[in-house]
Amino acid sequence: MPSPYSGPSTPTRTLAGGALSFGGDYNPEQWPEDVWPEDIALMREAGVNLVTVGVFSWAHLEPEPGVHTHDWLHRILDLLHAGGISVDLATATASPPPWLSHRHPEVLPQRADGTRLSFGSRQAYCPSSPVYREHARALVERIAQRHGDHPALRLWHVGNEFADHVPTCFCEISATAFRDWLRERYGEIDSLNAAWGTSFWSQRYSCFEEVQPPRATPAFGNPTQALDFRRFSSDEHLANHVAEREILRDHTPGVPVTTNFMAGREVVDYWRWAEEVDLVSTDHYLVAADPRAHRELSFCADLTRGLADGRPWLLMEHSTSAVNWQPRNVAKRPGQTIRNSLQHVARGSDGALFFQWRASRAGAEKFHSALVPHAGTDSRLWREVVELGALLGRLAPVCGSRVVSQVALVVDYQAWWACEGTAHPSVDVRYRDRAEALHGALMDAGLTVDVVRPGADLSGYPLALVPTLHLVSDEDAARLTDYVRGGGHLLVTYFSGIVDEHDHVRLGGYPGAFREVLGVRSEEFCPLRAGESVRLVDPDGATAGTADVWTEDVHLEGARTVLACADGPVPGAPAVTRNAYGDGVAWYAAVRTDPQTTADLLRRVCAEAGVAAALPVPPGVEAVVRQDEQHRFLFLLNHTDGEVSVPLPEPGEDLVSGTAVTGAVALVAGGVAVVRTEARAG
Amino acid sequence: MPSPYSGPSTPTRTLAGGALSFGGDYNPEQWPEDVWPEDIALMREAGVNLVTVGVFSWAHLEPEPGVHTHDWLHRILDLLHAGGISVDLATATASPPPWLSHRHPEVLPQRADGTRLSFGSRQAYCPSSPVYREHARALVERIAQRHGDHPALRLWHVGNEFADHVPTCFCEISATAFRDWLRERYGEIDSLNAAWGTSFWSQRYSCFEEVQPPRATPAFGNPTQALDFRRFSSDEHLANHVAEREILRDHTPGVPVTTNFMAGREVVDYWRWAEEVDLVSTDHYLVAADPRAHRELSFCADLTRGLADGRPWLLMEHSTSAVNWQPRNVAKRPGQTIRNSLQHVARGSDGALFFQWRASRAGAEKFHSALVPHAGTDSRLWREVVELGALLGRLAPVCGSRVVSQVALVVDYQAWWACEGTAHPSVDVRYRDRAEALHGALMDAGLTVDVVRPGADLSGYPLALVPTLHLVSDEDAARLTDYVRGGGHLLVTYFSGIVDEHDHVRLGGYPGAFREVLGVRSEEFCPLRAGESVRLVDPDGATAGTADVWTEDVHLEGARTVLACADGPVPGAPAVTRNAYGDGVAWYAAVRTDPQTTADLLRRVCAEAGVAAALPVPPGVEAVVRQDEQHRFLFLLNHTDGEVSVPLPEPGEDLVSGTAVTGAVALVAGGVAVVRTEARAG
Amino acid sequence: MPSPYSGPSTPTRTLAGGALSFGGDYNPEQWPEDVWPEDIALMREAGVNLVTVGVFSWAHLEPEPGVHTHDWLHRILDLLHAGGISVDLATATASPPPWLSHRHPEVLPQRADGTRLSFGSRQAYCPSSPVYREHARALVERIAQRHGDHPALRLWHVGNEFADHVPTCFCEISATAFRDWLRERYGEIDSLNAAWGTSFWSQRYSCFEEVQPPRATPAFGNPTQALDFRRFSSDEHLANHVAEREILRDHTPGVPVTTNFMAGREVVDYWRWAEEVDLVSTDHYLVAADPRAHRELSFCADLTRGLADGRPWLLMEHSTSAVNWQPRNVAKRPGQTIRNSLQHVARGSDGALFFQWRASRAGAEKFHSALVPHAGTDSRLWREVVELGALLGRLAPVCGSRVVSQVALVVDYQAWWACEGTAHPSVDVRYRDRAEALHGALMDAGLTVDVVRPGADLSGYPLALVPTLHLVSDEDAARLTDYVRGGGHLLVTYFSGIVDEHDHVRLGGYPGAFREVLGVRSEEFCPLRAGESVRLVDPDGATAGTADVWTEDVHLEGARTVLACADGPVPGAPAVTRNAYGDGVAWYAAVRTDPQTTADLLRRVCAEAGVAAALPVPPGVEAVVRQDEQHRFLFLLNHTDGEVSVPLPEPGEDLVSGTAVTGAVALVAGGVAVVRTEARAG
Repeated sequence: MPSPYSGPSTPTRTLAGGALSFGGDYNPEQWPEDVWPEDIALMREAGVNLVTVGVFSWAHLEPEPGVHTHDWLHRILDLLHAGGISVDLATATASPPPWLSHRHPEVLPQRADGTRLSFGSRQAYCPSSPVYREHARALVERIAQRHGDHPALRLWHVGNEFADHVPTCFCEISATAFRDWLRERYGEIDSLNAAWGTSFWSQRYSCFEEVQPPRATPAFGNPTQALDFRRFSSDEHLANHVAEREILRDHTPGVPVTTNFMAGREVVDYWRWAEEVDLVSTDHYLVAADPRAHRELSFCADLTRGLADGRPWLLMEHSTSAVNWQPRNVAKRPGQTIRNSLQHVARGSDGALFFQWRASRAGAEKFHSALVPHAGTDSRLWREVVELGALLGRLAPVCGSRVVSQVALVVDYQAWWACEGTAHPSVDVRYRDRAEALHGALMDAGLTVDVVRPGADLSGYPLALVPTLHLVSDEDAARLTDYVRGGGHLLVTYFSGIVDEHDHVRLGGYPGAFREVLGVRSEEFCPLRAGESVRLVDPDGATAGTADVWTEDVHLEGARTVLACADGPVPGAPAVTRNAYGDGVAWYAAVRTDPQTTADLLRRVCAEAGVAAALPVPPGVEAVVRQDEQHRFLFLLNHTDGEVSVPLPEPGEDLVSGTAVTGAVALVAGGVAVVRTEARAG
Repeated sequence: MPSPYSGPSTPTRTLAGGALSFGGDYNPEQWPEDVWPEDIALMREAGVNLVTVGVFSWAHLEPEPGVHTHDWLHRILDLLHAGGISVDLATATASPPPWLSHRHPEVLPQRADGTRLSFGSRQAYCPSSPVYREHARALVERIAQRHGDHPALRLWHVGNEFADHVPTCFCEISATAFRDWLRERYGEIDSLNAAWGTSFWSQRYSCFEEVQPPRATPAFGNPTQALDFRRFSSDEHLANHVAEREILRDHTPGVPVTTNFMAGREVVDYWRWAEEVDLVSTDHYLVAADPRAHRELSFCADLTRGLADGRPWLLMEHSTSAVNWQPRNVAKRPGQTIRNSLQHVARGSDGALFFQWRASRAGAEKFHSALVPHAGTDSRLWREVVELGALLGRLAPVCGSRVVSQVALVVDYQAWWACEGTAHPSVDVRYRDRAEALHGALMDAGLTVDVVRPGADLSGYPLALVPTLHLVSDEDAARLTDYVRGGGHLLVTYFSGIVDEHDHVRLGGYPGAFREVLGVRSEEFCPLRAGESVRLVDPDGATAGTADVWTEDVHLEGARTVLACADGPVPGAPAVTRNAYGDGVAWYAAVRTDPQTTADLLRRVCAEAGVAAALPVPPGVEAVVRQDEQHRFLFLLNHTDGEVSVPLPEPGEDLVSGTAVTGAVALVAGGVAVVRTEARAG
Repeated sequence: MPSPYSGPSTPTRTLAGGALSFGGDYNPEQWPEDVWPEDIALMREAGVNLVTVGVFSWAHLEPEPGVHTHDWLHRILDLLHAGGISVDLATATASPPPWLSHRHPEVLPQRADGTRLSFGSRQAYCPSSPVYREHARALVERIAQRHGDHPALRLWHVGNEFADHVPTCFCEISATAFRDWLRERYGEIDSLNAAWGTSFWSQRYSCFEEVQPPRATPAFGNPTQALDFRRFSSDEHLANHVAEREILRDHTPGVPVTTNFMAGREVVDYWRWAEEVDLVSTDHYLVAADPRAHRELSFCADLTRGLADGRPWLLMEHSTSAVNWQPRNVAKRPGQTIRNSLQHVARGSDGALFFQWRASRAGAEKFHSALVPHAGTDSRLWREVVELGALLGRLAPVCGSRVVSQVALVVDYQAWWACEGTAHPSVDVRYRDRAEALHGALMDAGLTVDVVRPGADLSGYPLALVPTLHLVSDEDAARLTDYVRGGGHLLVTYFSGIVDEHDHVRLGGYPGAFREVLGVRSEEFCPLRAGESVRLVDPDGATAGTADVWTEDVHLEGARTVLACADGPVPGAPAVTRNAYGDGVAWYAAVRTDPQTTADLLRRVCAEAGVAAALPVPPGVEAVVRQDEQHRFLFLLNHTDGEVSVPLPEPGEDLVSGTAVTGAVALVAGGVAVVRTEARAG
């Protein structure tokens, strides 16, 4: 097991002086200046200690080209500082003002079908645009110069949710930049031809000038072209981030720099991005249609901690209640925003920030909830905000501690892109599906997962899970094989290991890169029809669950059958297999097991790997441990509508209630506890 | 109760010499000229007295620029006049001929994504195009000159279904016109910035030149920009109507001018348009997928009468049977077209016209039914047409009378636009939903509704209903409050009163503008998930219905709970409230009540308001009263498949059968009666 | 009954020297040259005797403009020839290389909304482009010169699946070509105006220059314009085919020329195309979502044989297992690819070719199955391929024989286009629906159908079926009428005979062109709502099935009622009628009968027509007879999961098992037999 507390101390630790951060996006320019003092007073009432200012302020900082109006920002920074509130200062480049595209229409992004997008919402720029880049960097330079020494400044916030609405731009400027990127990557055009498989469909290029972005085409486009375009686009956005960060570092070398990720989405390759921030921060919003959306939250939180390499991170945005951009924007129930916040903290966030401070009166997000709702402070929501602020205050000791985990879950954004490419065996194979299924089953079992990248060092983990890793390099696959050979336990799910970095299929049988370690060879994918399912049986022929979406024509090459298909396209074929390999064990799930079967399988896999939960948890209770050199913090969150009792292995102090707890802790419906005990050996 | 017969006599009265109008669109240019005499003979057989000529005749009147061929039109006008048939003469500007866009491609409209639409269907023009305007007005000038003194002329018909297919155009010409309109509206750019809330998302404009139509953008556009663009577009179309009308008035001051609305749709703000016609006319087509589409018809008919300020109006188009543009175009059953026609007449139309006279052989509407079907005159449909003509003849005494109503229903097109904007709490909140639900429940109860605009004088109505009036001005909201204070009864449904004219949320709690009069304050919207519903209970805890789509976190501030949520997102919260306010009573429906609960609630509200039906009607029977100084006309329409008997309060004469009726009137399945009695005091 | 073996011997007979063709698309340029010898060896192992080479090789044959690299092709032809494998040599024009559109962007096709498509998939050219045409023809000239005398060459393969992804192009070049085509068709603009019905909606053109392709318009476009554009587009693609063919014929007059159709789709008018090939070949892929997709296969195979005028044809492409372009690409079960192949052979294909030889590692079709799968030759699939090759070898005697049929089924691509036009009575009326329903019911009854064009000579058939022939010329309708008068039996289904070649409705009652022969007259279409159905009763009032989608207000004019609607829109109206006419009988199905009712009706119709199956077949068994002057070949295919026994009328030899069979033949689940007996008189 890896040490739950290791590595250098990070800037995070100092963000708010050892306290968990609490606050959110603060957009004072939306309100008359006489509201500002009330804002500060309310922030103090709620215990807010960090606000993000300036995310969409470009038009207010530079209302016309060359006209700079920073005084208002200075005034609000002063006010915040006087109120004891630190500032996460944005570079304001997330959305250029109307004058930029009015004067330089070529900065506007273009869709794959050639549609030129218009100014009128946000983020209307081509990430490769030299005009955008020049103006954005000049703005950052000026902000750093003017405000870099302000005592309220605790953190720099570059851009905002990079690539959210324009993950890829298809304009001519982007096309030229793409060709440059390809020249850099491939050198010779025939290297590109080989990588892209252009012998297919008469696509052989004679020079880089002929290459286009993957615009609208008569039939399916080239999948490697599409994959490279995703890589290129991620890099283009990242170049913008890095360029701004460099300016900020030049001016304020001591101030950490972040940019808020959307870690649960695949708009860029966050593994590459994570290397370029001082502090990993992310935004997370609940899926309103899902009554169990708190599970998805936990998955995303663990994923974010993975990006932070296990170090504390920061939840930069979530919502106090409903958002405005989903079809039906469900409000949070009483207590839910506190519970959600603590889920993030439990899984490594050193704080909980929100979008946004005050609900807007106008604009596209006026129905997005906020810390101060439309209804004002005489409201349940505001009272919960105040309660949350106080609670986070009491949880300050948690700050800087690390989450404890025994299981690694491999997630990769490039595999995600490749997995969900066009013209694949089944549209029902979605990248996150198995990752969340495995994560959720372990969460139910009281186990916490560390998300890692494919090439990660797994030596500290007794068990590693590899869901749907469609694309994997030979090198990364070899590491996973070596991991098992050296005694590790590995579970791989279907459609993994199929293609290499160029999206070329590995020949000889599926799952390609993992055939040897899994001891199986599939001759063919056998996806199911919509609504179709197959029955699974154990080696004794007893029914042991069902599967849908996917089966395969699996043949054993060393492995033995754990579950088999009783019917469907490949009756009798192995559905789940186990292979003793070297000193370890490798399991393969060749079908999409139902939730109960997934849980049963993981129970068995964990038992063999010697992975056990810290304590037994009742259904619907989330249990996570953070730990530092001195203490161990057991987070318990009751997501059910009933009261539950959780037995405690040792007595401690509940930081939520401020009381000593021993034997067991009782949680009311929706209740939370954070039990502090002495640290145990890692 | 307002007098059911008041105001100046209108041009309507004289349209067809005191008779109800009967006929339809007549497009003789689609047929060889030797068919025309047969047309006239058949029209006479059917009792047709008014036909609309020339709607799509531009290409035949001006086949090439500057070449004018009006003789054929003169000949058909002569023929019609000789046959005793009056003409509603169209200005022929609804669809320019191919040569216009061939020579001036910039007249073609553009979609939000930049797609330039092509010639090849109809209405292919940008409403702001100076080229279109110049050519259209020259055509109208010539038509008025040439045909204005023709004795067949009874009515002018400007354009056709303005804004139907191109409600908004996004081309550069439109963009320029939009900026001019905004300059006119706002004067200073910072007024626009304030109104649009451009501090949000860095949208602050430095000058009007930077402003764009709400074209395709990377994320949600600015909602006030979208709202103003709807207003602008409505005004641009209206300017075209008014310009044509002025030419016609100059030439023929005595001939009334109309244009056919589509009152049940929100393509323009018909409240503004209604001020600019001499006679309100509208088109209506049944929703084929809805087996109870006759209810929707009645709603639209009442809405049209509202636009006409209670005066008689004219049904310009409906269909004898199926249309061609819905997914499954259901034919009308025997008797249905007669019954539908009488529904319109019952609700204030002084006639029933159809699209079109003769079913086309070719073109996009060849499968649209007509007065003369493809099958010819040896057909049930033609026999019904003849029967309808005779029936309308017998109903001539109805002409000019007014519909009697005690309930006002507030409908507003701008509120409609605002209500269905993007990024709202729930896509399931549709503007017309509650309006139709309330209307239908009252219709079932034998009550007729007057549709009024938000600022209307309600002094004559004991009860006013305000469904989903999302946007409302402070002034109009105050009038409604005053109405209750003065003794009126008011029912408001959820998502009303939320924003002002600039689409800015009213702070302090929902439903903003109506909080005081309703005596409630909602802290939060709590929309339901798809398929979710909540149980409603009365104050004794007894189940009293269900709700779906919408609930709110309602708090009482003076009101008392009539129904409460038993479960769902806000268990225990008020669902329906009643507030005694001043001398009146204000009810709030904070949830989407099911149909039975809606009916139960309205029964109670009507009882308190002293609103009662003129007579008890069996289920499925529609009863409406028209009245003039001498007579009262009770329309009874049996929409069921069985025979019913309707008790009569007093004896009278059934104009349909021409017989005296007393005690009760028996209606066969699908049958109709119009019972004339002496007028009673209003 | 037509002679099952007549007409001149065709090139097909000689394609592979009297053997059934077996092989597929071979794309050696996708693989290193050292793989090629292994390819040849494996082909020999499998019994491959024909491969298609060069379909997507343009970029490899002409990597830069004017640079020609044909040596690799020559080498592979030599290798194939040495291996005894013949070649179907493609003209390589199906997909131009990137340099063509890079240098001449105007060759790229355009969508109806103006979107210019990009290079990056395949087939990215406007079919009317002079640049494309010039370059393509120069390439073909060079291929013919260089390889025309190669001894491996057996067949020319022009292009590939013409019009698949770009059935219609809307660019300016296409627009100009369309106008030229219209001038040719109509001569005078007023002929076009008459044909298109441009009096409707002010569409009258003053000259051809004003005419546009049916691009995106504000409302429904002109249907005749759309129909003519389909005709024009089919002709433009055909002109490309013919131009290439002429070059090939000039060089190699003895080598037959084909191009692979997609006969089951309506992208072009294959009746016209069939006249322009020496050998009809087609591609067919199973509909994965349909568990009974083998029925659709049989329909398409019969349709293809119809295009070949009853002569043998060639299945140019199908798949050994799953494809990659459907939402869920279901793999074939063991034995299924053999059974599918034999279905095609049973219905007239003299062979079974596949896409493609070796499954690709890269590109958009890498998950499309192949003869050599990703898993390699140690696989069930490869063993089946080898088995299939051997089996086809044993079936060589079948080569050149003709399918025996007594029933003609009229199918027409222009009627298909017209039937599925916009603004029709019901979106649920799909052209192929009734054709497949009738075909399938007869297949279940052991009867084989010949597909014919509307004007075909039906003298040899006792029974003809006319499903949904929406558009039909007066002449073709008269032939069908004469056919009945002369003693034929005819079954027509609803929405037939409605419009003429100009898409003009025939007046006087439906079904227009067939009213007289059917002895009925419908006054109105009465389509049903989604999910709605009606009950059908026989003349005694007994329930006799159901119908959905469609009913009509049918009146008898000589016919008598076979089934009537018991409820629905026209209770009491005839649903199915029978009319004795001349010496024959004409039946009309005015409703969409359910499958059982369709089968019952056909049983009765066949009995009256004296049409009987050759032998009784158990459910799920397909029985088809091919016959030549010497022999009769009874194909029996068991599509069920159980063993069945089929009684044989006479003893014979099963070519599949190589054994004598007598009395009955037993078929295991999925099994096939081909029983050869002596020929009987036709």
